[in-house]
Amino acid sequence: MTITKVFLNEDEIPRRWYNIAADLPSPIQPPLGPDGNPLTPEALSKIFPMNIIEQEASQERWVDIPEGILELLYRWRPAPLRRAVNLEKALGTPAKIYYKDESLSPPGSHKPNTAVAQAWYNKQFGTKTITTETGAGQWGSALSFACSLVGLECKVFMVRISFDQKPFRKIMMQTWGGKCIASPSNETEAGRRFLAKDPNTPGSLGMAISEAVEAAVTDPSGTTKYSLGSVLNHVMLHQTIIGLEAKAQLDKLGIKKPDVVIGCAGGGSNFAGLAFPFAYDKINGDDIEIIPVEPTSCPTMTRGIYAYDFGDTAGMTPLLAMHTLGHSFVPPPIHAGGLRYHGMAPLVCQGIVEGLMAPRAIGQIECYEAAVQWARTEGLIVAPESSHAVAAAIQEANKAKEEGKEKVILFNLSGHGAMDLSAYDRYLSGELQDHALPQEEIDRAESELKDLPKPEVKKTGKW
Amino acid sequence: MTITKVFLNEDEIPRRWYNIAADLPSPIQPPLGPDGNPLTPEALSKIFPMNIIEQEASQERWVDIPEGILELLYRWRPAPLRRAVNLEKALGTPAKIYYKDESLSPPGSHKPNTAVAQAWYNKQFGTKTITTETGAGQWGSALSFACSLVGLECKVFMVRISFDQKPFRKIMMQTWGGKCIASPSNETEAGRRFLAKDPNTPGSLGMAISEAVEAAVTDPSGTTKYSLGSVLNHVMLHQTIIGLEAKAQLDKLGIKKPDVVIGCAGGGSNFAGLAFPFAYDKINGDDIEIIPVEPTSCPTMTRGIYAYDFGDTAGMTPLLAMHTLGHSFVPPPIHAGGLRYHGMAPLVCQGIVEGLMAPRAIGQIECYEAAVQWARTEGLIVAPESSHAVAAAIQEANKAKEEGKEKVILFNLSGHGAMDLSAYDRYLSGELQDHALPQEEIDRAESELKDLPKPEVKKTGKW
Repeated sequence: MTITKVFLNEDEIPRRWYNIAADLPSPIQPPLGPDGNPLTPEALSKIFPMNIIEQEASQERWVDIPEGILELLYRWRPAPLRRAVNLEKALGTPAKIYYKDESLSPPGSHKPNTAVAQAWYNKQFGTKTITTETGAGQWGSALSFACSLVGLECKVFMVRISFDQKPFRKIMMQTWGGKCIASPSNETEAGRRFLAKDPNTPGSLGMAISEAVEAAVTDPSGTTKYSLGSVLNHVMLHQTIIGLEAKAQLDKLGIKKPDVVIGCAGGGSNFAGLAFPFAYDKINGDDIEIIPVEPTSCPTMTRGIYAYDFGDTAGMTPLLAMHTLGHSFVPPPIHAGGLRYHGMAPLVCQGIVEGLMAPRAIGQIECYEAAVQWARTEGLIVAPESSHAVAAAIQEANKAKEEGKEKVILFNLSGHGAMDLSAYDRYLSGELQDHALPQEEIDRAESELKDLPKPEVKKTGKW
Repeated sequence: MTITKVFLNEDEIPRRWYNIAADLPSPIQPPLGPDGNPLTPEALSKIFPMNIIEQEASQERWVDIPEGILELLYRWRPAPLRRAVNLEKALGTPAKIYYKDESLSPPGSHKPNTAVAQAWYNKQFGTKTITTETGAGQWGSALSFACSLVGLECKVFMVRISFDQKPFRKIMMQTWGGKCIASPSNETEAGRRFLAKDPNTPGSLGMAISEAVEAAVTDPSGTTKYSLGSVLNHVMLHQTIIGLEAKAQLDKLGIKKPDVVIGCAGGGSNFAGLAFPFAYDKINGDDIEIIPVEPTSCPTMTRGIYAYDFGDTAGMTPLLAMHTLGHSFVPPPIHAGGLRYHGMAPLVCQGIVEGLMAPRAIGQIECYEAAVQWARTEGLIVAPESSHAVAAAIQEANKAKEEGKEKVILFNLSGHGAMDLSAYDRYLSGELQDHALPQEEIDRAESELKDLPKPEVKKTGKW
């Protein structure tokens, strides 16, 4: 029997997270306030609890995972490491393709890895209610799930058009006891302002962020905090459990290192989660190719500008040092909602600038093609986001075949596609198309960003 | 850290199935043909491949699982055994609640356990195409998944009203390369007859069975066979992997035996899968309560008649010895489609008559209440079918609390509810109601069955 799955026993599970901020050659670029100066912890304390703010700025390489969070994580973890033997055969590649399966959490993706950690830290801090925003609902359902496990109220502002058109994630949140509100709403000053301007607005992630932050900072009791599901440093930290487990699992198989590590990247968290622990090995001398994958329609890392930019559309968040297509960028309506973001996690972007990681963009037709081949060989119907990682893994397996090399390819399968079947239907019916980004969009971004501060990170030339 | 999950290493996984037919006190009751005589293997060979027919009639206690099937099963197995510590706390029960999580297969339920076995045996036999019927689509998607893994064509006749109203399972089948046809269709004689009678018929499982069987037996090449996802002996056999894993896992925890074993039962396969290996221990002297759970609206085991009856509505299948509400019974439209069946697996029914198992019926409101409590304590949103097992586990945990006993309760979580969220929505909105079956329905069943042969099984009085 060919081994296609690796578990970890209780004594083999990782008990600390890895913080790449300790090892990047340049100092990490802090978030800036509206005055262009680095934000103080105090300035952030109305939004986040202090234990998370400290983690956000931490330079410690290894951070112990509290026992309470381990218990929550190991309700569904360790995520199995599997080998895609059927796909290898179908491709006729000498490469071995391994993947971490993050689809097995109750909400169906990697998102709960940070959701339970954030919920737990908030509970410790004394928070009673967590607010957040959600687009298609993946993050909102993960946070509702986490809050129900630790006993916190969860209030999710969900972009109105998704709230109306995609009721299933909303029902998930409600089943977990979360309160899901169509945004813009009448519950906040910002929401009322957006509605006054256009009562029929479909909403946007930018608007929903504004409402969620306002709902947190205006609670007079001070026990409501805000939570973000990607982009920030502490989110990347929490997700490194993925890569740390993968290392322990490869170790059990006697594999010293993978040659290629791949993850799809929207805000960066599932990619970073798998890749950062391997980036640590690369920094320490291992030869590993590390590839974040994005859609050609939203090519933040491959065509965006490395600059300080706002995290939201309305320009209300701190400025973050990242690759960006400009905060006013509106990506075409592709079916990987989690990859439709103008920016990217600052730690991932810094890794790219320094040469540790080499981003790649792939069109959605190739991604669905890969996803269907995956379903028919390996069995799982993956999320449209994850299909980008599958497509890149297939590219790399084909390259290994051309080169005649027995490479070890490792990728992150970030979630299942059970809630995205209509996208598969459109692909199978030949209704999907690719969208390449016109150069004018890059020009627009450049002009939008020209007066904002610039980060100070340089390519090292080491990698 | 409280251990809430148990894995099995490769050397600990079960390598044979358990066949309860070897141990039931009375001889197993064979299926009968239209003439009232036991069906010969030859008579079945136009429908099923001979290797499966042999298994259906086997009296061997232990059946080796072929290596090829083990490889398929262990792509997603072993299913974890978990302990529901949060629910225990919420209930304040001294009982320990363990469950097998069968929701982690790619199609989301226990169904693939037999689907991959049947696909593999058909492949060995030389079958090129498998036909089947499906109601809401759970079985059709499991078989499409299995066929794609072994390289067989799969043709699924899906009840038209589900085909139209529930497109997601259909898209799943198509993604796995299955051909999904709305039934009644123009592809079969039977389908054309049904359509001629009523061009707007919503279809029924009975009609779909007729079409799937016809499509198999009329293939002139003889390489098309039919497959059934529950009820038959070989399906129960394949599902015993669930209970055998559970025994190995309890063993690792040092638990000698569970006190109560629970599964929901529609056709009987997930219940039998968990329960039969424990029934073996009960036959050999262990004190174990074994409870199949059904909805009060379709109370086959608790109020049905033990008789020979047809498996389908149209009366085209062999006669099976089972508890039945009569083949013309139409259950009310509850949201657990997999439990809306007039009959039950003959092996389960024989176990009930002989006193090994004690069935229980629970109303759907209590089941959704249990499912929501489960989601908010244990995290997973379960299938409406599985909610019946959760509800019974809660009843037993509350009973243990009243009695002050530290019982070990084990149940089967047969699938996730990601495709059933609209049912949760209706429950949360207070729109669901319970349906008790009027006595007239039982009277109707009695008169419908009075001229059919009677099975010969008696209560042993042993248990």
